[in-house]
Amino acid sequence: MGLEPEVISDNEEMRSWSRNQRRNGETIALVPTMGFLHQGHLSLIEEAKKHAGVVVVSIYVNPGQFAPGEDLSRYPSDFEGDLSKLREVECVNVVFHPRNLYETTTKVMEPKEAGEDALEGRKKAVSCLEEDGKKGHQTWIRVEKLEKNLCGRSRPVFFRGVATVVAKLFNIVEPDFAVFGKKDYQQWRLICRMVRDLNFPINIIGSELVRDEDGLAMSSRNVHLSPEQREKALSISRSLLKAKVDVQRGQTSATELRNAIIKSISQAGGRIDYAEVVEQENLEAVEEVCGPVVICIAAWFGNVRLIDNLEINS
Amino acid sequence: MGLEPEVISDNEEMRSWSRNQRRNGETIALVPTMGFLHQGHLSLIEEAKKHAGVVVVSIYVNPGQFAPGEDLSRYPSDFEGDLSKLREVECVNVVFHPRNLYETTTKVMEPKEAGEDALEGRKKAVSCLEEDGKKGHQTWIRVEKLEKNLCGRSRPVFFRGVATVVAKLFNIVEPDFAVFGKKDYQQWRLICRMVRDLNFPINIIGSELVRDEDGLAMSSRNVHLSPEQREKALSISRSLLKAKVDVQRGQTSATELRNAIIKSISQAGGRIDYAEVVEQENLEAVEEVCGPVVICIAAWFGNVRLIDNLEINS
Repeated sequence: MGLEPEVISDNEEMRSWSRNQRRNGETIALVPTMGFLHQGHLSLIEEAKKHAGVVVVSIYVNPGQFAPGEDLSRYPSDFEGDLSKLREVECVNVVFHPRNLYETTTKVMEPKEAGEDALEGRKKAVSCLEEDGKKGHQTWIRVEKLEKNLCGRSRPVFFRGVATVVAKLFNIVEPDFAVFGKKDYQQWRLICRMVRDLNFPINIIGSELVRDEDGLAMSSRNVHLSPEQREKALSISRSLLKAKVDVQRGQTSATELRNAIIKSISQAGGRIDYAEVVEQENLEAVEEVCGPVVICIAAWFGNVRLIDNLEINS
Repeated sequence: MGLEPEVISDNEEMRSWSRNQRRNGETIALVPTMGFLHQGHLSLIEEAKKHAGVVVVSIYVNPGQFAPGEDLSRYPSDFEGDLSKLREVECVNVVFHPRNLYETTTKVMEPKEAGEDALEGRKKAVSCLEEDGKKGHQTWIRVEKLEKNLCGRSRPVFFRGVATVVAKLFNIVEPDFAVFGKKDYQQWRLICRMVRDLNFPINIIGSELVRDEDGLAMSSRNVHLSPEQREKALSISRSLLKAKVDVQRGQTSATELRNAIIKSISQAGGRIDYAEVVEQENLEAVEEVCGPVVICIAAWFGNVRLIDNLEINS
């Protein structure tokens, strides 16, 4: 039998657990997730285990990163399924599963009541955020340049929500390491920058993107794709690989690379949000590929928005 | 002989010191200051000593809270004088004196060179902040409602600078307690809110405002007042005390209270920035005084901006 993860939903209990571990000389790695775990998440957990003695996986669908009208209520969840997957990896010590990280009016968080579904909890969380009341959450962390381009253009509150909830998790779990997937490339770079700028005593590990056998980057949103949409969505990863080959063959024009990607995805029926060739650290667009870059793509297939990227160290 | 405080300027060394203390079972209180210490600061340190086993005083003039054209370069400093005052209180274990908290491009901070004056260091710090380079600091914490009114109206970048540098200090020093003066009432409330909203594991202590014998609220900026200006500036504290008496005698109109204060300070030659009757926690203006309020004043005498406040628990 594997390691049975302890489920903790109370902030203070979580912090006490971590402090006890540290007193015993352990190092702690945190893997923040929004649940509905897949192989991509499990690879983050395996990465975490390489760095630290104990591993905490947080499962929390963060209302702070969804704007009104975005897909918070559609975000898939399967807590029991997640738990059984986490049992199988046999190295997760704690699943931190807070009810609502934005309810700061009371210090003690209420345990989730039996029979109350997750969606109901999330609606409350959103209404808490939207509430104009006097005691509501009002502190946001802005990583002012990195939050603006790529996904930031179409999702203006997304990265302030990510940065803020990650800071909250850092302050509650107090890990030595935190692992983020390079699938969410901009998120990973933004968290690295936040940690440096705010002096969080935490090492950020960027874990490689994981693809399904057909090449599609793993994502919780993939379940919303029909088989036909999924086949068409492969144009994303294929156009990225093609761009890499083009660079290896001497192509240095970012415009040429972008145009080929846009053409390929559009022809497959995808609607491009962006396709950009940017510097790896600051995510600023380049015109000429003459150093390490990353090509980042966001595209819609049906009503599913997919992102993908490929680093090119030319 | 008193306790000789250890001076630490390196971030990693500071954090190691704190972690050693905690391993030995000590609790740590931080008193963040911008130096040029006076009796008001010393009262914060005495307050700190009531709560924790060891006391860290940080001295750092934070360029992040000054806009271009504000008085960063005029801000008084006297590090040797500060040190001798801190020796006398006999309970300060560490003076944390970082060179530039915004230089995040290198992990190791350079020791301050002999003969280089503080102003030069600050100019570098400002140019670092203003620099549009690719590796500069770009993360800011916004407490979106509390940062906007009172002092936030005339100093738009002030509170994001305060919140950000305090978060940095928290992450470097890792204290159990942090003491803030209620002289800077809005700052104290904003830090309380930030700590709740971001789950910092730190207890914030609000320490009472300290007045000179003549009633003037203590401030490092008071040294810039001529004796004549100082006499006229007493209209601030006098009008606050008068307002309190008025409330005790049944006055509930915020407008009446404000008008009396504005008249009194203006007649003394002061230029009012604001005079507001606000709720104590959220600093929202009230029309009727029917619960705990605080009257907050900012006024200029000559080119010196003074702030003062008085809580009224009616």
